[in-house]
Amino acid sequence: MDSKVVAELCAAIGPERVSTAPEDLVAYSYDGTWAETRPDVVVHPQTTAHVVAALRIADAARVPVVPRGSATGLAGGAVPVEGSICLNLARMNRILEISVPDTVAVVQPGVISQDLQRAAEKFGFFYPPDPASVYQCTIGGNVATNAGGPRCLKYGVTGDYVLGLEVVLAGGHVLRLGGRTIKDVAGYDLKRLFIGSEGTLGVVTEVTVRLIPKPAAQLTALAAFPRLADACEAVGNILQAGIVPLVTELMDQGTTRAIEDFKYLGLPTDVEALLLVAVDGDADLVQREIAVVADVLKRSGARDLRHARTAEESEALWEARRNVSPAIARLARNKLGEDIAVPRSRIPEMVARLGEIGRTNDLRIIVYGHIGDGNLHPTILCDRRDAAMMQRVAKAAEEVLEAAVSLGGTLTGEHGIGIFKREHVPLGIDGQVLAWMAGVKALFDPNGIMNPGKKLPG
Amino acid sequence: MDSKVVAELCAAIGPERVSTAPEDLVAYSYDGTWAETRPDVVVHPQTTAHVVAALRIADAARVPVVPRGSATGLAGGAVPVEGSICLNLARMNRILEISVPDTVAVVQPGVISQDLQRAAEKFGFFYPPDPASVYQCTIGGNVATNAGGPRCLKYGVTGDYVLGLEVVLAGGHVLRLGGRTIKDVAGYDLKRLFIGSEGTLGVVTEVTVRLIPKPAAQLTALAAFPRLADACEAVGNILQAGIVPLVTELMDQGTTRAIEDFKYLGLPTDVEALLLVAVDGDADLVQREIAVVADVLKRSGARDLRHARTAEESEALWEARRNVSPAIARLARNKLGEDIAVPRSRIPEMVARLGEIGRTNDLRIIVYGHIGDGNLHPTILCDRRDAAMMQRVAKAAEEVLEAAVSLGGTLTGEHGIGIFKREHVPLGIDGQVLAWMAGVKALFDPNGIMNPGKKLPG
Repeated sequence: MDSKVVAELCAAIGPERVSTAPEDLVAYSYDGTWAETRPDVVVHPQTTAHVVAALRIADAARVPVVPRGSATGLAGGAVPVEGSICLNLARMNRILEISVPDTVAVVQPGVISQDLQRAAEKFGFFYPPDPASVYQCTIGGNVATNAGGPRCLKYGVTGDYVLGLEVVLAGGHVLRLGGRTIKDVAGYDLKRLFIGSEGTLGVVTEVTVRLIPKPAAQLTALAAFPRLADACEAVGNILQAGIVPLVTELMDQGTTRAIEDFKYLGLPTDVEALLLVAVDGDADLVQREIAVVADVLKRSGARDLRHARTAEESEALWEARRNVSPAIARLARNKLGEDIAVPRSRIPEMVARLGEIGRTNDLRIIVYGHIGDGNLHPTILCDRRDAAMMQRVAKAAEEVLEAAVSLGGTLTGEHGIGIFKREHVPLGIDGQVLAWMAGVKALFDPNGIMNPGKKLPG
Repeated sequence: MDSKVVAELCAAIGPERVSTAPEDLVAYSYDGTWAETRPDVVVHPQTTAHVVAALRIADAARVPVVPRGSATGLAGGAVPVEGSICLNLARMNRILEISVPDTVAVVQPGVISQDLQRAAEKFGFFYPPDPASVYQCTIGGNVATNAGGPRCLKYGVTGDYVLGLEVVLAGGHVLRLGGRTIKDVAGYDLKRLFIGSEGTLGVVTEVTVRLIPKPAAQLTALAAFPRLADACEAVGNILQAGIVPLVTELMDQGTTRAIEDFKYLGLPTDVEALLLVAVDGDADLVQREIAVVADVLKRSGARDLRHARTAEESEALWEARRNVSPAIARLARNKLGEDIAVPRSRIPEMVARLGEIGRTNDLRIIVYGHIGDGNLHPTILCDRRDAAMMQRVAKAAEEVLEAAVSLGGTLTGEHGIGIFKREHVPLGIDGQVLAWMAGVKALFDPNGIMNPGKKLPG
């Protein structure tokens, strides 16, 4: 990168917010994956004006910009590219407003998701999106990936809560999209284009989200299913009983065994699946609903049903789910987490296909996910030092996505598409649609400086 | 229009689906407004292939195409333009699938919204969007306007239920956007661009919507508020009590008096506002919730509270709201219905501004709306034969939108933007954003044949 660019950044934003120190360049060269590329400079904006200045300088000099929140993504979306500016938004972390009469919050992109959840709760409100990385990830990152999480079946994804966005485009144009009302269809819905665009169209500098009243109570049941297919059917049966569960988390036998090996919880490891179901809402209602859920689970083929009657008992049941990540981390040196959604009715078939793919490629694939919305996270255990194995991993990953698409599913990109999954996007989207997506990219970022090489196939 | 175009349409789609009969051209020259323009030809496609053929022929000949469902819109969006093809989608009216395991419905665009609601109910499901014209309007029209209705505060707008779309672009390119799963962020969210685009980007030929379990019960309370501001505050107080109401319908004194003049219901006409609140969900829960609602309404300053304890009593209370349209229709020869949303906290101020705008322009403005989401429908009574009055109406309409925007609000376009409101769009969206919207239009419809002169300002 031309040293003039760094000098311009220092002059416009202040040298204390611009760093080329080697230790900073190393620190900002990663995300939640094993990818690694050092940026040429790291910029720490604190205001929209700082972002405008940075994007104006970058666009004029045709220097790529890679925005970054907490970089917890699992697809390489926030990993810098060669010769780029790393735009670290973590210091734009103020909650600007929580409006009780309008039940909205206005926040900067670097606010940690759980900080927003807690701030909302102080006012008796609820911010439902709850990605697994909620303690670390930022709202800006959640918007960039349209983050989901276990509560989507009932409450939807991040984008369903975003009422307004301030975005800065390459060149420094500031667009205010949407507002603070639910209905807003004057013009085209550009806001939704930016949600899930992983920083490839612009940088989000302010987010207005709607809040809802906090549900009074939450209760949980954990069921062991000898047959995984029965667990899937049970979820449909719960919906048929008129109950939309807060959470329907499936853990396959590999997941359960990994948890038990990690920490003794006394989970049954001889069944094909565990299913964790939670309901939330009015305190009396959830008591009745969890009883109905328990009944439906039993009728659907569950064994060893544990049915929480108090918040404390619910917490104990959640412990299994909370231990999935550390338990899997112990099983292998590396893992490749896939991220797919299939129609709920096809989940048993998808899980069977995952078993075949594991066997034919001599790989271990662990499966868990939010099956209420058909979202599975098949995790391929691997060791990056074993080149032959990594070739089989790449082949298996492609087969996983092909299987999902053939069953009417899609990549969810809940953890981002980034660099790891972008070459798989054409499996689920035809070339015609991709061509128009490329047109959208060219419209908002004509010089192609915004997070290039991410999200869309190369 | 070149007669060759009509001949090509007949050859491609079948002469029985193409009409230039004067009586047809007249019949298809209107929507729910007083605008009127005759098309040169009316085409009645029955398949996606018919739509593809029509758009290919139209694009090659640079002939404008105006898609149309039931044409119940209140902004001129479906009124043909000079020399255009009216593309009547009413015959594409099949419900293709209702999937119980996936809780989705797949429908053609010409399906009447209430037909979808009823079909879903047969399976124990609920399709929440409920625009006032639900008996006549089509799903395609609802998608084209991102239709709302009274249930938005709790259940959101049409776009929140659309999982997948098949759209045909000018030139006949078919795009399949989204799918049948909740999570789908592989690529940019082009689906949302088409939702609310009023046929200016393409024609929707198939819609996949998600369904939810049908709530077991619904109960209603009707409260008279001497002070309108108290009614607005009451809605916030209900949310603060942890209840998200299904419906919060405000009727101002002008509305109430119009209803009572139309049909004696014994409503109090000496108060500033009536507020209709409904809750839905579990049968026991709604009994308790409506009691809490009643209590909150009283504490917020309500008088004459009627609190339904049965479904029948609820129905009786709904009669007031159901009579708003016919009651207002009697008051004047014509009316101009505005459609705005302001942050809930600003509604009292907005209603006061509407009073001033009426007084200064010597016009009567009736106000009602779904105040839970800040959506008001100020209706200006008028007589189109009185040119001087219509000038005051145009001025007042502009002042209404300016007032809404100055209070942090927007045009909602719940009834469409069409031709009646497009020149007001710049009041709420800055020129920079509009320029990019025009870029989006040019990307998908480079020859500008799709419903030209609608939605975006000219």
